[in-house]
Amino acid sequence: MAGSNEKVISGKEVAQHNSRESCWIIVHGKVYDVTDFLDDHPGGSKIILKYAGKDATAEYDPIHPPDAITTHLPPEKHLGRVDPETVLKVEVQVSDQEKARQERLANRPPLTEILNLHDFEAIARSVMPEKAWAYYSSAADDEITNRENHAAYHRIWWRPRILRDVTNVDFSTKILGHHTKMPLYITATALGKLGHPNGELNLTWAAAKHGVIQMIPTLASCSFDEIVDNAKPGQVQFLQLYVNKDRSITQKFVQHAEKRGIKALFITVDAPQLGRREKDMRQKFDAEDPAEVTENKQQDKVDRSQGAARAISSFIDPGLDWKDIPWFQSITKMPLILKGVQCWEDALQAYDMGLAGVVLSNHGGRQLDFSRSAIEVLVEVVRELKKQRGLTFPNEKFQVFVDGGVRRANDVLKAIALGATAVGVGRPFLYAFSSYGFEGVDHALNILHDEFEMNMRLLGARNLKEVVPEMVDASSLHSHIVAVPGDRLYDSNYESMQHARLREVKSKM
Amino acid sequence: MAGSNEKVISGKEVAQHNSRESCWIIVHGKVYDVTDFLDDHPGGSKIILKYAGKDATAEYDPIHPPDAITTHLPPEKHLGRVDPETVLKVEVQVSDQEKARQERLANRPPLTEILNLHDFEAIARSVMPEKAWAYYSSAADDEITNRENHAAYHRIWWRPRILRDVTNVDFSTKILGHHTKMPLYITATALGKLGHPNGELNLTWAAAKHGVIQMIPTLASCSFDEIVDNAKPGQVQFLQLYVNKDRSITQKFVQHAEKRGIKALFITVDAPQLGRREKDMRQKFDAEDPAEVTENKQQDKVDRSQGAARAISSFIDPGLDWKDIPWFQSITKMPLILKGVQCWEDALQAYDMGLAGVVLSNHGGRQLDFSRSAIEVLVEVVRELKKQRGLTFPNEKFQVFVDGGVRRANDVLKAIALGATAVGVGRPFLYAFSSYGFEGVDHALNILHDEFEMNMRLLGARNLKEVVPEMVDASSLHSHIVAVPGDRLYDSNYESMQHARLREVKSKM
Amino acid sequence: MAGSNEKVISGKEVAQHNSRESCWIIVHGKVYDVTDFLDDHPGGSKIILKYAGKDATAEYDPIHPPDAITTHLPPEKHLGRVDPETVLKVEVQVSDQEKARQERLANRPPLTEILNLHDFEAIARSVMPEKAWAYYSSAADDEITNRENHAAYHRIWWRPRILRDVTNVDFSTKILGHHTKMPLYITATALGKLGHPNGELNLTWAAAKHGVIQMIPTLASCSFDEIVDNAKPGQVQFLQLYVNKDRSITQKFVQHAEKRGIKALFITVDAPQLGRREKDMRQKFDAEDPAEVTENKQQDKVDRSQGAARAISSFIDPGLDWKDIPWFQSITKMPLILKGVQCWEDALQAYDMGLAGVVLSNHGGRQLDFSRSAIEVLVEVVRELKKQRGLTFPNEKFQVFVDGGVRRANDVLKAIALGATAVGVGRPFLYAFSSYGFEGVDHALNILHDEFEMNMRLLGARNLKEVVPEMVDASSLHSHIVAVPGDRLYDSNYESMQHARLREVKSKM
Amino acid sequence: MAGSNEKVISGKEVAQHNSRESCWIIVHGKVYDVTDFLDDHPGGSKIILKYAGKDATAEYDPIHPPDAITTHLPPEKHLGRVDPETVLKVEVQVSDQEKARQERLANRPPLTEILNLHDFEAIARSVMPEKAWAYYSSAADDEITNRENHAAYHRIWWRPRILRDVTNVDFSTKILGHHTKMPLYITATALGKLGHPNGELNLTWAAAKHGVIQMIPTLASCSFDEIVDNAKPGQVQFLQLYVNKDRSITQKFVQHAEKRGIKALFITVDAPQLGRREKDMRQKFDAEDPAEVTENKQQDKVDRSQGAARAISSFIDPGLDWKDIPWFQSITKMPLILKGVQCWEDALQAYDMGLAGVVLSNHGGRQLDFSRSAIEVLVEVVRELKKQRGLTFPNEKFQVFVDGGVRRANDVLKAIALGATAVGVGRPFLYAFSSYGFEGVDHALNILHDEFEMNMRLLGARNLKEVVPEMVDASSLHSHIVAVPGDRLYDSNYESMQHARLREVKSKM
Repeated sequence: MAGSNEKVISGKEVAQHNSRESCWIIVHGKVYDVTDFLDDHPGGSKIILKYAGKDATAEYDPIHPPDAITTHLPPEKHLGRVDPETVLKVEVQVSDQEKARQERLANRPPLTEILNLHDFEAIARSVMPEKAWAYYSSAADDEITNRENHAAYHRIWWRPRILRDVTNVDFSTKILGHHTKMPLYITATALGKLGHPNGELNLTWAAAKHGVIQMIPTLASCSFDEIVDNAKPGQVQFLQLYVNKDRSITQKFVQHAEKRGIKALFITVDAPQLGRREKDMRQKFDAEDPAEVTENKQQDKVDRSQGAARAISSFIDPGLDWKDIPWFQSITKMPLILKGVQCWEDALQAYDMGLAGVVLSNHGGRQLDFSRSAIEVLVEVVRELKKQRGLTFPNEKFQVFVDGGVRRANDVLKAIALGATAVGVGRPFLYAFSSYGFEGVDHALNILHDEFEMNMRLLGARNLKEVVPEMVDASSLHSHIVAVPGDRLYDSNYESMQHARLREVKSKM
Repeated sequence: MAGSNEKVISGKEVAQHNSRESCWIIVHGKVYDVTDFLDDHPGGSKIILKYAGKDATAEYDPIHPPDAITTHLPPEKHLGRVDPETVLKVEVQVSDQEKARQERLANRPPLTEILNLHDFEAIARSVMPEKAWAYYSSAADDEITNRENHAAYHRIWWRPRILRDVTNVDFSTKILGHHTKMPLYITATALGKLGHPNGELNLTWAAAKHGVIQMIPTLASCSFDEIVDNAKPGQVQFLQLYVNKDRSITQKFVQHAEKRGIKALFITVDAPQLGRREKDMRQKFDAEDPAEVTENKQQDKVDRSQGAARAISSFIDPGLDWKDIPWFQSITKMPLILKGVQCWEDALQAYDMGLAGVVLSNHGGRQLDFSRSAIEVLVEVVRELKKQRGLTFPNEKFQVFVDGGVRRANDVLKAIALGATAVGVGRPFLYAFSSYGFEGVDHALNILHDEFEMNMRLLGARNLKEVVPEMVDASSLHSHIVAVPGDRLYDSNYESMQHARLREVKSKM
Repeated sequence: MAGSNEKVISGKEVAQHNSRESCWIIVHGKVYDVTDFLDDHPGGSKIILKYAGKDATAEYDPIHPPDAITTHLPPEKHLGRVDPETVLKVEVQVSDQEKARQERLANRPPLTEILNLHDFEAIARSVMPEKAWAYYSSAADDEITNRENHAAYHRIWWRPRILRDVTNVDFSTKILGHHTKMPLYITATALGKLGHPNGELNLTWAAAKHGVIQMIPTLASCSFDEIVDNAKPGQVQFLQLYVNKDRSITQKFVQHAEKRGIKALFITVDAPQLGRREKDMRQKFDAEDPAEVTENKQQDKVDRSQGAARAISSFIDPGLDWKDIPWFQSITKMPLILKGVQCWEDALQAYDMGLAGVVLSNHGGRQLDFSRSAIEVLVEVVRELKKQRGLTFPNEKFQVFVDGGVRRANDVLKAIALGATAVGVGRPFLYAFSSYGFEGVDHALNILHDEFEMNMRLLGARNLKEVVPEMVDASSLHSHIVAVPGDRLYDSNYESMQHARLREVKSKM
Repeated sequence: MAGSNEKVISGKEVAQHNSRESCWIIVHGKVYDVTDFLDDHPGGSKIILKYAGKDATAEYDPIHPPDAITTHLPPEKHLGRVDPETVLKVEVQVSDQEKARQERLANRPPLTEILNLHDFEAIARSVMPEKAWAYYSSAADDEITNRENHAAYHRIWWRPRILRDVTNVDFSTKILGHHTKMPLYITATALGKLGHPNGELNLTWAAAKHGVIQMIPTLASCSFDEIVDNAKPGQVQFLQLYVNKDRSITQKFVQHAEKRGIKALFITVDAPQLGRREKDMRQKFDAEDPAEVTENKQQDKVDRSQGAARAISSFIDPGLDWKDIPWFQSITKMPLILKGVQCWEDALQAYDMGLAGVVLSNHGGRQLDFSRSAIEVLVEVVRELKKQRGLTFPNEKFQVFVDGGVRRANDVLKAIALGATAVGVGRPFLYAFSSYGFEGVDHALNILHDEFEMNMRLLGARNLKEVVPEMVDASSLHSHIVAVPGDRLYDSNYESMQHARLREVKSKM
């Protein structure tokens, strides 16, 4: 994209354009005039002005797709290359808060003490920058669906079988024809560099090592090509697609992906508009100077109160429709899967339109609150597609995936028993690399591997075909219970039962 | 109401009548002799005696309907006008508690940080006078129904649709033939000046700005005419009616309202007697001198222990009956709606008697505790009126509304999907103006607007007609679950799972 | 019982018998030689030895039936009268704990601040001696049933009716032919003097004043005749009966009661053995000297670890059987009611044997843990007795009562709606007199009266006949839900949503 | 096993082999060269090196089966006997933590204050070494099943009967033809010496005293023969069997057991691999030097991160299969029972293959998480075996047992009512001897005896045949409810109801 005979500008010259009146910044060695763009910046002008006349690359990188600046600024604002020798280093002031975080980072326990995927989350929460944690962990509105995704698995119980020779158990399978060592894939999640400088590459490398498939996100921090370049020969990758209002951009992207060897296209259909993620939004206020917020609130052209999520997603087309499907089928031969289906009616329509499958998903609880969990939707999809089209699941021709809320192989196997081909796992891997980089993801996959082996044995299943619906009791899955509000007066009067106590303790009370 | 050639009395003279034996007070510039009324005052004599010989307007205003004093005192006790120059200012001693409150008020976050309707409540709770908070927030008995109203919405889950072009979504509708930009109205709540000096006018102004309808309460702090006068030309207002034991007063009020352009009359039918709101009652004791309470308890003629709620409602007729309905139909042409219906049998009778609709409501949980939520009643009303009269909902001829417990557009849309025409929202707007005045209500409506837009898109609904019953799973709505009481001995023995911890933290423990 | 020409013994002489070897005590002015009884005392020897040679009346009174000592000691151990002038006062050392209690007692809020029956319990818990609180409040095993009794009412919801003229509401009814101003009675509870020196008489007096019926307990602290003597002319009283292994004692008691004008006999059938009330038992250890407990544990003949409950109940006959019923019918004309029925089968048998009714009860949760609540059993009793014998309820010929867990008139009316004739209320009245004596019970009944009036109006019921099954939704009553154990790892990682905060508060965090 | 003419080695010589290069240890007076074994030790090399050149018996004993070392080390590494006079005592440094524990141990309350089985657990948790507590109390994964085992009993409620002469109640029964005084047996649990030096013998002695049956575990700390030798004449014992990969070892063990008089063989079928018990695993890290963990993590050949559980179980055969059953039938005449059946299908197959019964069990929640409770599985087994084979339960020919989660006789009787022959109780007895040795188990059985007596009376059952299905309401048993995630914003705004408070308290707030 960059021309070859660019102008070379000195750091000194750039440094003079350090005001709202004339604001130049350096990103990846290029100089841009962003003066006119200040008020349109989804993230607010303040954060840009902080780097006016300086190198903004470090701040820019984790939260922008690599080509964001070149796409959004007209060519005449691309001023040229900077002479790197002449650029003054931005002196980063390390806040007390950041120092405390660095100390926590240094005190991470060794990986051998990480026993399950929850542990990564506990460590990540301690060692990630607050803004990154808020972006990864937040979900829509009251985060009911976000937590329901996990809770739903706890309403499904096992009916394991005994006395089957489980010396050898095999939990490998095929996803859209491609081999995977476990019945899961690493699903697409945005902005990997928020958690770790290597971003999505941590996932690429670990996927290769463990023989599982990575789904590359449209909103990756690393560029698409970088992620593909880091794959090993023969390593299978899928692509998650946000469809652009400008379909030509989408077409170019999809066809480029196909050329680069991507094996399947997962079109996100649950995000015509990104959900309100209030933790993410609130984090933003906490990080800003309250004085300026008050003072500027009337004159801001752009609503800056929407957190990282909305800042990066304005290009997504809310007009995407079933009638666009044939067009997708015309521009690529990759199998097409709809990601974000939430009822059997839409799954049926996807099948009828000749798609390769659906991902039952509510976007990790980040879109419509009170959407049901994927695992609950799976039951109705399997039932109705059998009833109406005679399909049985898992089904090679029309594959059903679920994602959201998974923390253990135990959860994954419940989805397999109920008919899913495989399960997408997202946040746990983000937390794994945010706390330990590539080694974290590697260890996470090791844990899952051990859990699969153990659970298969304890279930009495020698391969995934033996993980059948009869093995689960999902009869409470559809109960959405909220207890009658507590009787505070009665409860505060009730004196709790006490067990026997040591003598000394008693004498002290 | 005041004659023109009133006597003018000096403040000095008034000041001499400052005892239980002779007690005059000034309200709105008029002098009243309340000596004989002291023992009949629903709020107790003490609070009046505090202002004996002085100007009581500031204390009087927020908790009395404007004409309370003229209605209750016989004409001969209306002594005349006071000469304002001569009135001694009541020196208001600002308590430490009040100073702390003022400080909290000064520290409210800017409105941009208010992300949802819950936020207003959190701020209002901090910055409102305790008495006002107690009156607004309290509900009947154990406040089970009050909280159930909200909880019930959490038992309803979405089945959203995908791949519909939702570039443009329209969530406007008509209520009783009148246009509204959102499927909600500002429902009637009493004593607006407790929360803000402009009281109900905050709502009038915001309703105008956002194109929604305000229902004026009988027990407003502002006078009915003041509220109507503040409406913009063409602005639609409804009226909520408490029926007086003296029907001529009611008739005059209703016919005056119709003349002033009120478009519908909502007759409250769930309050033959006001409920016990114990928080409100308890607040009263906290505010009084315990010594006097003890000493006087035997001789008080009036039960002063009933809080603000009962103090203002003694005129309401417990004898109101179905057979009064034709009389209402005879005195006004406004459409009549019953507010407070709680089972299908009564909704059916309302339909059969030719009324325009019903509000399914339990009065915000302030009347009969263990009444079911409106949203739960809605399901049976829709089912039975279809079964018995062939009606479908939403229905233009017989409109069904719900109120209570709503905090997000997500909640409102569930009611729409289940057949409601629109939803009444009350307390959230009170909290909005109690914390930020008109700007608060304005911002609250902005938030709701954004939520409607987002939720419609995420549901795959382009207008309210597309928000259909198939979009919700309400199968758990009727579950009124109370968990089996906890096993305290077992639970206190159980040692909770721990996740991985940072090294340093561990060494400290 | 005492002969007229008793020997008179000087206090000085008594005082010499102050050891385990020779132990005399004074009770109600009589001298007893209890040396041989020390090891058989259900409450342990220690407590008696504390009063060896002294007047034990104050300690004896509240926890023994009045005739316990004369019944248990052979006549030759009844030594005679003491000369009161010569008795040394036992110097009561007031412990710090007791002083603190007395201070709390002095700080009780005035009765006007007691808004509901829960309030009495809160105050009683603060001001009662610990031993008394433990006896009154304790229940069987894990106290699951005890709390379920109350919780069950929270699974029943109202379907109130509107637009009925409820200016006048009447909630009086008849119990076994006798008028009561409210549909409840004061049920039998033991050892009233533990809570207040006037014991059960507080209830007698209040029952008279409010026109309700008192059921006299077999295990009253006051003597039966004293309670009857304190009734007003025409005041109706019932009797609760524990059946003695020695039927002649029972016969004498029952026939004496009938002669004294008792109107109905409630035979307790749920207590062949008293339940384990571990709080009561544990309280006992706390009060003892741990050294002695250890040292003596092997040699004790009597198991002293059973609390007040078992100490007083060893006479109750575990052999009571259906075949005893005709005998009861032969010795009295009073209507016979079985108290403690817990399934429809036994209610049916009671009906078939010609009894006047049953009390569905689990003894306040003090007997078999995991017994269902009376209100739940009521539903099956009404259903099956209709199905099998064509009975409808409430039924004059065969009356069904419930007790346990009631705290508000709201609860009582649910039982009425489901078919009960009336409801027994026990502990709340104990707490009322334990905290405020007679005035407490009086105020409790006033509160209930006001609650009945308000609830009847809000239900749209003008009399109890209009409180019908259609008014309640009891469909969740039979759900005995225990939530799946919590996912501690997931929950501890979840970062709770936060609402908007004041600026200052935020800066501090 | 030891030869007679062993070499005698001096303690001094042993002491020289105290390094990783040459590591000898003394166990039970024998000297072993474990140098080559260091890296294969399931518990890690570090713990062995701590005792290099020293006597390791005290550390070795509680967590190894008695013959572990002789079995695992080749004969040439068995170096001979040590001369006991010459062995230097290992100086045990008592840590502060251990001192604190010893102090707590000294302050145990007297046994008379232990009122129920929960109390033992509370004391054991305080006085056991942390490692032992972790091993006994831990369970699989999130410990959901572990707690569900107990919770399931709380979803079953009683329908007791009245007016049956319960003067005498008899709760004895027969298990596989052998008399027991209560309908329970002491089930097999591993590593008894972790809790008490006498280990499983505490159970043997108490079982004899109370006329109940003990099931001897394969993984006992005491040797099998020692446990059998400690039985009284005629005392019945069963054997729990983990099947070895080397069937000849199993055959020898089983036939030896039969010869020694064992009356039944319970083959564990739910543990082809031991579950992940993370508390146990985490405890291990806490006890190690973090520095070494980090440093060595790459080079360790053996995964030491698996806790005590896996360390002792590597011999168990994951290949055990239904087709092995005839072989078991061929090597012993003892009745064969499968322990760990979890669905009716497997129970049916066990019946069809002529086995004597099954234990419905999920291994105390220590294997597959989200396995259902035994009591829940019991209902389906009874139903289906009746439907498919016409069996009724309890059934002498095919006996069904349950274990897991039992804490009271009340629980046991629910299982009896639903068709179980008897119930296995495990952990409560471990906690009993861990806190009080033999006397603890003795007291635990006394408590259960009293509870059985009381519960039988309160149920109206004179013997176990009268404890019938009609006595329980198990209709909520299959509900696996997880509440909808909490609405944190709403809840944090809700101001809880307050009851009346003492004046003084109020003034302080």
